[in-house]
Amino acid sequence: MTEPRYPHRHLLGIQGLEQHEITTILDLADGYAAQNRSHDKRRNLLGGRTLVNLFFENSTRTLTSFELAGKRLGADVINMQTQASSVAKGESLIDTAMTLNAMHLDVLVVRHAESGAAKLLSEKVNCSVINAGDGAHEHPTQALLDALTIRRRKGTIAGLRVAICGDVLHSRVARSNIHLLNTMGAEVRLVGPRTLMPSQVERMGVQVFHDMRAGIKDVDVVMMLRIQNERMKGSFIPSIPEYFHFFGLDYDKLALAKPDAVIMHPGPMNRGVEIDSDVADDVERSLIREQVEMGVAVRMACLDLLTRNLPNAGVK
Amino acid sequence: MTEPRYPHRHLLGIQGLEQHEITTILDLADGYAAQNRSHDKRRNLLGGRTLVNLFFENSTRTLTSFELAGKRLGADVINMQTQASSVAKGESLIDTAMTLNAMHLDVLVVRHAESGAAKLLSEKVNCSVINAGDGAHEHPTQALLDALTIRRRKGTIAGLRVAICGDVLHSRVARSNIHLLNTMGAEVRLVGPRTLMPSQVERMGVQVFHDMRAGIKDVDVVMMLRIQNERMKGSFIPSIPEYFHFFGLDYDKLALAKPDAVIMHPGPMNRGVEIDSDVADDVERSLIREQVEMGVAVRMACLDLLTRNLPNAGVK
Amino acid sequence: MTEPRYPHRHLLGIQGLEQHEITTILDLADGYAAQNRSHDKRRNLLGGRTLVNLFFENSTRTLTSFELAGKRLGADVINMQTQASSVAKGESLIDTAMTLNAMHLDVLVVRHAESGAAKLLSEKVNCSVINAGDGAHEHPTQALLDALTIRRRKGTIAGLRVAICGDVLHSRVARSNIHLLNTMGAEVRLVGPRTLMPSQVERMGVQVFHDMRAGIKDVDVVMMLRIQNERMKGSFIPSIPEYFHFFGLDYDKLALAKPDAVIMHPGPMNRGVEIDSDVADDVERSLIREQVEMGVAVRMACLDLLTRNLPNAGVK
Repeated sequence: MTEPRYPHRHLLGIQGLEQHEITTILDLADGYAAQNRSHDKRRNLLGGRTLVNLFFENSTRTLTSFELAGKRLGADVINMQTQASSVAKGESLIDTAMTLNAMHLDVLVVRHAESGAAKLLSEKVNCSVINAGDGAHEHPTQALLDALTIRRRKGTIAGLRVAICGDVLHSRVARSNIHLLNTMGAEVRLVGPRTLMPSQVERMGVQVFHDMRAGIKDVDVVMMLRIQNERMKGSFIPSIPEYFHFFGLDYDKLALAKPDAVIMHPGPMNRGVEIDSDVADDVERSLIREQVEMGVAVRMACLDLLTRNLPNAGVK
Repeated sequence: MTEPRYPHRHLLGIQGLEQHEITTILDLADGYAAQNRSHDKRRNLLGGRTLVNLFFENSTRTLTSFELAGKRLGADVINMQTQASSVAKGESLIDTAMTLNAMHLDVLVVRHAESGAAKLLSEKVNCSVINAGDGAHEHPTQALLDALTIRRRKGTIAGLRVAICGDVLHSRVARSNIHLLNTMGAEVRLVGPRTLMPSQVERMGVQVFHDMRAGIKDVDVVMMLRIQNERMKGSFIPSIPEYFHFFGLDYDKLALAKPDAVIMHPGPMNRGVEIDSDVADDVERSLIREQVEMGVAVRMACLDLLTRNLPNAGVK
Repeated sequence: MTEPRYPHRHLLGIQGLEQHEITTILDLADGYAAQNRSHDKRRNLLGGRTLVNLFFENSTRTLTSFELAGKRLGADVINMQTQASSVAKGESLIDTAMTLNAMHLDVLVVRHAESGAAKLLSEKVNCSVINAGDGAHEHPTQALLDALTIRRRKGTIAGLRVAICGDVLHSRVARSNIHLLNTMGAEVRLVGPRTLMPSQVERMGVQVFHDMRAGIKDVDVVMMLRIQNERMKGSFIPSIPEYFHFFGLDYDKLALAKPDAVIMHPGPMNRGVEIDSDVADDVERSLIREQVEMGVAVRMACLDLLTRNLPNAGVK
């Protein structure tokens, strides 16, 4: 196998990655996707390496996906969720990370409610840091798995028209996808009510629509976002039926997109809130399950590439 | 080693299993029981395979037992308990399972408070499903480990007289054991107060006793059930001392069973409620520790057999 | 490699260990410390062995440290924290341990709020027991990692003057360190307010100081203890600023120690309560990060030595 080069030691966000770097990750992930469909899903590439998943927010799919990715590469994987940690005793984020760092990690995967948490840690520790979601900032592996899913179906990302719909304001998934899609040459539309749009949206190189029918007209990809009930303290949205009427994805609105438009959602879904249940399960057009599948492959690729840049990589 | 055949892909319940299929599992488990007593308890049979324990109810022994079984067979094991999962964000059982399925599991072990949950999942996913307890329905690996424990002590199951005592109504352990013991040719008695007997009990091919002294007279095996305080919202039982007086297993009542009758309990025990503490710890007659030991062996056998029926099994 | 002998099957406390036994552990741990700094941190010494971490109290560093130590030695590692266990269903400590024991563990690492819990379990189970902290009694691996950290910096422990400062009363760390430092020939001082000193302190072979400036004068090592807010129900200490003024370690007080005195803390730290934040992070003099690092190495050494004394050890 040719050994692709990837110059970074951390993966903190999509912003700042170049097109060829993203392509390197996706190409490698494609190979892991094939491996994951086989009987023996394990390679011993990271044997003797230590991966810690440090999650300060609840998560099913992201934590499990990283855990599986690490184990399938042969790493020793440790999960730390806040409930059971010293954070309950008042230890700071930095002290927790430095404690782990002293145990000679190779990769620290971190999810935290504060934007910038992953970057802060990356400046302190000796290991690679992967941002698994920091506040409303970035969630780079989600954007990469979305890109891989799109590329496998559409053959390319460049030139596609992609609508990102819903709660853009609170969404790190949206932010990472905007960076990635712009970098890869797609045309990005943001669709949602004014109250759920970030204020600096006009500087993001995107088109903004507050009417969903106009926003998804003739798009190739409809990317729905989760309504983050747990983050909304107040009055960003009206009632759920009213929200679904204007911004929920149903077949009626979907008819305005291209005939072969695909449907995506980062999960977990609120069925009947931001997406109609039948649309979510559409066998032909929904790629939601494949997004999850590609998640493990993309994370394996990231772990593989990042650890090549650690001291002593490749030395046994 | 001869390769026994086992035609099923899932283990959802004992109901529907044939005698020779049960015997196949027990025979294989006997071998694993021997291996577990040795220094090197690991075989790499499931290397590269992925096992997920998806538990929607708290559990010590069952979860740990499956985790150990999977690890001792070399699988990558992921534990998911509800507290830390997306279920807290309102994701449905099916969506959680389908998310996991998209990650290419080989075996999904599920415990859930609703009867039928495991079957429902088995119809949706591509992997093997093992029911680790679904509501008051079935808990098949518990019945299999009970059977292995009995067979190792008594040599056979056929012809034995077994009393299942206590809270039969809420007990999936009882239900699975009734099916198994009937299939293997034992004589089954149910013993407990009327309020803790299921309504269709007369159709189960068992004898019912509301007087414990009569119920355990001349039996070979006394299987006590746990009083499930956490499931009882109301007035199924009178006070604890009164319950113990009538239905708790003590030496006085035990004297009515056969002289070599053995004592079993699926745990965790409520000492002094359904069982006297000394009886529970009786070195000669209590098999409660051996039940736990056989649990790991039985689960290894089930994992071994079920994965033989997955696509690409045996291909490396 | 020469095979050091270590006669014990359990590690319940430092009390009772002889000097040469402690030296054996530290020497072996030194080798593991080197291995942990390399790329491949895994040895398959405990392959096929089972390690269970049974923690009845929250912990980040100790649990993670044991988990890593076990995994880096190739063991199957199971973590059990109380929240998710049958203890919530009312099962007793002993029943939980006996259940695990029946699953053929090799090592049980236990943390419990009651003094003597680890010893109690060691008398019941067939496996090795390591005390990871029992009430205010002992925390032997902490004292061993402290000793290793000191020895690596100072070359020896004998003859050093060590001040253990703060909440000695509630501290199992202090208790284990007192035994170890006395055994290894160091001079031990205890420093803290009268309300945080144990009553039998004069029988411990130490000097006691209630004035911190006097207590740390000319010492080689300043070992700070954590103020255990969660254990203090009442009025052991005055206000935090007052406590810090009298007993917090800052550069002003530190100036009284030897010029090359080092600073230690078992973590997690309450910065600004028992220790000034800058002192804690002092690049030259603080050994707090190295303590964490040595923790993994010491636990690997203990797991290695204890399992040599199990039945069938060394037989594959």
